[in-house]
Amino acid sequence: MSDDDKSPSRSMRRVGVVAKPGGEDAVEATRELADWLRRRGLEVALDADSRAALDDSSCALFDLKERYDLVVVLGGDGTLLAVARNLAAGVPILGVNLGTLGFLTEVNRGELYPSLVKVLDGRYAIEERSLLDAEVRSAGAASNRCARYRVLNDAVVTKGALARIIELSLRVDGNLVARFRADGLIVSSPTGSTAYNLSAGGPIVYPRLPVAVLTPICPHALTLRPVVVPDDSRIEITLETSGEEVFLTLDGQEGCPLDAGDRVSITRTGAAVRLVKVSGRTFYDSLRGKLRWGGLEGAADGGSPAAS
Amino acid sequence: MSDDDKSPSRSMRRVGVVAKPGGEDAVEATRELADWLRRRGLEVALDADSRAALDDSSCALFDLKERYDLVVVLGGDGTLLAVARNLAAGVPILGVNLGTLGFLTEVNRGELYPSLVKVLDGRYAIEERSLLDAEVRSAGAASNRCARYRVLNDAVVTKGALARIIELSLRVDGNLVARFRADGLIVSSPTGSTAYNLSAGGPIVYPRLPVAVLTPICPHALTLRPVVVPDDSRIEITLETSGEEVFLTLDGQEGCPLDAGDRVSITRTGAAVRLVKVSGRTFYDSLRGKLRWGGLEGAADGGSPAAS
Amino acid sequence: MSDDDKSPSRSMRRVGVVAKPGGEDAVEATRELADWLRRRGLEVALDADSRAALDDSSCALFDLKERYDLVVVLGGDGTLLAVARNLAAGVPILGVNLGTLGFLTEVNRGELYPSLVKVLDGRYAIEERSLLDAEVRSAGAASNRCARYRVLNDAVVTKGALARIIELSLRVDGNLVARFRADGLIVSSPTGSTAYNLSAGGPIVYPRLPVAVLTPICPHALTLRPVVVPDDSRIEITLETSGEEVFLTLDGQEGCPLDAGDRVSITRTGAAVRLVKVSGRTFYDSLRGKLRWGGLEGAADGGSPAAS
Amino acid sequence: MSDDDKSPSRSMRRVGVVAKPGGEDAVEATRELADWLRRRGLEVALDADSRAALDDSSCALFDLKERYDLVVVLGGDGTLLAVARNLAAGVPILGVNLGTLGFLTEVNRGELYPSLVKVLDGRYAIEERSLLDAEVRSAGAASNRCARYRVLNDAVVTKGALARIIELSLRVDGNLVARFRADGLIVSSPTGSTAYNLSAGGPIVYPRLPVAVLTPICPHALTLRPVVVPDDSRIEITLETSGEEVFLTLDGQEGCPLDAGDRVSITRTGAAVRLVKVSGRTFYDSLRGKLRWGGLEGAADGGSPAAS
Repeated sequence: MSDDDKSPSRSMRRVGVVAKPGGEDAVEATRELADWLRRRGLEVALDADSRAALDDSSCALFDLKERYDLVVVLGGDGTLLAVARNLAAGVPILGVNLGTLGFLTEVNRGELYPSLVKVLDGRYAIEERSLLDAEVRSAGAASNRCARYRVLNDAVVTKGALARIIELSLRVDGNLVARFRADGLIVSSPTGSTAYNLSAGGPIVYPRLPVAVLTPICPHALTLRPVVVPDDSRIEITLETSGEEVFLTLDGQEGCPLDAGDRVSITRTGAAVRLVKVSGRTFYDSLRGKLRWGGLEGAADGGSPAAS
Repeated sequence: MSDDDKSPSRSMRRVGVVAKPGGEDAVEATRELADWLRRRGLEVALDADSRAALDDSSCALFDLKERYDLVVVLGGDGTLLAVARNLAAGVPILGVNLGTLGFLTEVNRGELYPSLVKVLDGRYAIEERSLLDAEVRSAGAASNRCARYRVLNDAVVTKGALARIIELSLRVDGNLVARFRADGLIVSSPTGSTAYNLSAGGPIVYPRLPVAVLTPICPHALTLRPVVVPDDSRIEITLETSGEEVFLTLDGQEGCPLDAGDRVSITRTGAAVRLVKVSGRTFYDSLRGKLRWGGLEGAADGGSPAAS
Repeated sequence: MSDDDKSPSRSMRRVGVVAKPGGEDAVEATRELADWLRRRGLEVALDADSRAALDDSSCALFDLKERYDLVVVLGGDGTLLAVARNLAAGVPILGVNLGTLGFLTEVNRGELYPSLVKVLDGRYAIEERSLLDAEVRSAGAASNRCARYRVLNDAVVTKGALARIIELSLRVDGNLVARFRADGLIVSSPTGSTAYNLSAGGPIVYPRLPVAVLTPICPHALTLRPVVVPDDSRIEITLETSGEEVFLTLDGQEGCPLDAGDRVSITRTGAAVRLVKVSGRTFYDSLRGKLRWGGLEGAADGGSPAAS
Repeated sequence: MSDDDKSPSRSMRRVGVVAKPGGEDAVEATRELADWLRRRGLEVALDADSRAALDDSSCALFDLKERYDLVVVLGGDGTLLAVARNLAAGVPILGVNLGTLGFLTEVNRGELYPSLVKVLDGRYAIEERSLLDAEVRSAGAASNRCARYRVLNDAVVTKGALARIIELSLRVDGNLVARFRADGLIVSSPTGSTAYNLSAGGPIVYPRLPVAVLTPICPHALTLRPVVVPDDSRIEITLETSGEEVFLTLDGQEGCPLDAGDRVSITRTGAAVRLVKVSGRTFYDSLRGKLRWGGLEGAADGGSPAAS
């Protein structure tokens, strides 16, 4: 499996630009980028905040549901997450990190324009990342609530800070896996494996594998461990306890309260996020860089079981 | 994905029987089983130890390279491992646990004959488990050694008890993942994920996923974490340090010494182990049972973050 | 260090009884116990709920601030926690578990009366458990809020379910240990080490050691690990981020919201909880029983690195 | 507890110098140091290797059993370990790291001479580190073997690379804690907590706490977790299985084979290592530096549960 797929080449005409809200840096970078794109004859659509900040009504308003030839996200992995999970199917995204490189953002600010030249030239690849669908079915007969969400990283059932013990049941394809007490449960895509999942003790997963990771958060039973399952499994989490504040959170950015008996069903969607790749950096390069695996001066080097 | 594939039905004629060496129980169970099979007109081949213990020269000698219609293994997961990884392609195996049920042994002693009746009737399913190939290429020009091994659970590079620091490089498909100090590195199949991998902190993996798990053993750098990769990746481990005792071990049962510069290449084989399934137990049932996930009286239940 | 200290023998006269609220079982057990004690000429004080449930105004009302010769807690570790951390100094507590034995409850229901006979006879020992004091100093000048809490298990700074990244600074005796992102931080006494701390990956600590354990909850930096420090250290946690819901929770039972800049100072108190010991069970017995360390049929036993 | 104890001031006369063997750097540093010390009228004793490498028979031969006023170790934590655990009681050691700073080495090469000036001036503190004694009692009646070792970091019972399952019993002060299968068990002092113990998942322990840490290596039972116990406990490990290669290793530098039934008893010694402190660096400074806790660009920062 190579990290770069077929290189598409159809011409770009309409470009969406979305910036991280609230940064002076981001505003400057956005203005510069919009100008650069328009000088090359491209139509530019800006997110509402940037459009207001730039006071630029000549730009169209960016709309997640429209089809652009390219969307450029200026910010970090978080900004990209927010856009990617709700973007119209098939639209390619280029992530530009204004800080340090993330796992999702492909280039940093210094590499932006050389990268865009390549993209406009058709010299890029697309890496597809799978999305998960999470559906909440309410136990309350009256409410008959049913909400659907889409995530790129993870869907997490988690208790409030002041909640006491919560108990969850986990079923995969109708099979009971465990009924357990914990702070929560993370259902992560491969893309999300390096995010919250990693902090909670879950494994890192190569991006394009057809899997989901089920990682308990601070489980009471010490034998409860992360499980990797097929991503087309139907993963069902039922809240078994009542009277405590519990939420479903989506990519760590949206939330929805859960009541006793509510069931969250999660499975892979048909759609996928399409990340633009120009850098030649592989997933393993990102790991080595972000987690500092290249270095040898690791933590426990100074002592036993040996050393100099 | 269901846990049970197509149900084959061609008639059984030749059955191999392999028992765990050294147990009085196993000898008795083997004698009983051989008689039972022969009363049903089947040809029985016995492993050498059992044949000697039973003093039964009327049985043929079991040969790993021959094609049987069925091989019955009496023992535990370890006995099954030893047979399975070297068995001729396509031969179905039924694992019978003489102690407590394992992850690989399908039935316990009490269920043996009812299960065999089903199998002889064709009322069974086959679950395929992938195998990994490990190839050692020696760095020493003179030796020009090149050994190949096949494993069902795991190939592990590990230092001797008295060895001091060893350093390994890990490459996947030619990409450097990390150069690191540790007690060793486990390359595990999904089948092996519940064995040594789990003890070393790796995730549990659903059996039929096309993945391998790379789990460092006691790494010096605390950021080094288990990684799940495609099982058709070429996983290469190079021993970077000299003068210390280091081994490659195969399913924890065979070993091969490594020298500085030696490289171990691991990838999935074309072949697969074919496990006979009659019990209806799913992978998740095994997990729940073996790891006691059903119970709620877990470790830390007695205290904070809440409790009665 | 032995598990049993000097055996006090002064005569018992006034006994407090506190039961877990809401259980029919607990009400019955409480009535029986109150009768048993009064038949032996002892004065009994009941907690308000039990007194109402029993409709027994002949009993005095239990008051945490009064000095009893003995307090008997009927419930689980959680009920005992709630009483113990606020009890007047020096009052001995006997924990009676109505369910399965906990780490703090000394006897189960069947052992209650034989145990009480021993206690009234003076045939018991006292095991002291240290308490931690947590003081919150508000950053807001106007508010000038300063709250104090006492805990037996743990003081935990933790984010709300919908909060995004929070950042904490940890100082010990004025030294910066780390400034880090995480879901939270647990400061646990030895007693609390088998509770939330254990679920979050912290070590088990022998009860009477003069230490506190600092365990991050799902830290972003993988090198952040549990640290055991002297319990007379001044442990200070500062909330560095604003705009997110963050709480200090006490023994998982009380909570207090934190704002940006708020600082929580934790150190050992002079007082200690005095647990009555009659069973002869040691801390190691509890561990072996609760965590099932006696058994050998552990998780990963079925496979590599070896097996039958 | 302060990090710096009483500052002794009696005059220095005899200095031992021990260098890491085999480095050209170390030879040069040693020559320079010996000259510097002799120019100040001090008697210098050199380790045998350095004496040979320097071809300097005017220096005395360093002897672990003699009492020096100061021993300077040039190398890393490993070199210091080897000297410290066998040094005559009470002799102060200054560790000089020729590479990156360790947990035990106090100064780096650039700081050596300014530090020595302070030491000769009496402007230094002593930090005591406890040592553990490990005694092996052989089960074989005939052999009647009984060996004693002293360690600064850890005593580890561990299986050979080709050994299959080993089973150990752990007792503390005569109480059975667990009988379990694992790759081994680490008994670590606070000083050793940042060495092998940390790699195996054990907690970091403040140096001067009166504790030992018991950390299983890759245990089969997932509930087996690190336990912190009083360091004056009698910790006993019995090898319960036979026929497999098992060793006791001492500070990762020496080893001793164990047979079935052999028992290793470990407890704190009366003696302590006396580390010379001149830098003002605290334990927490070392942690923050070595484990990079100061930085905020941690592993999982790029994604969920939130981020820009």
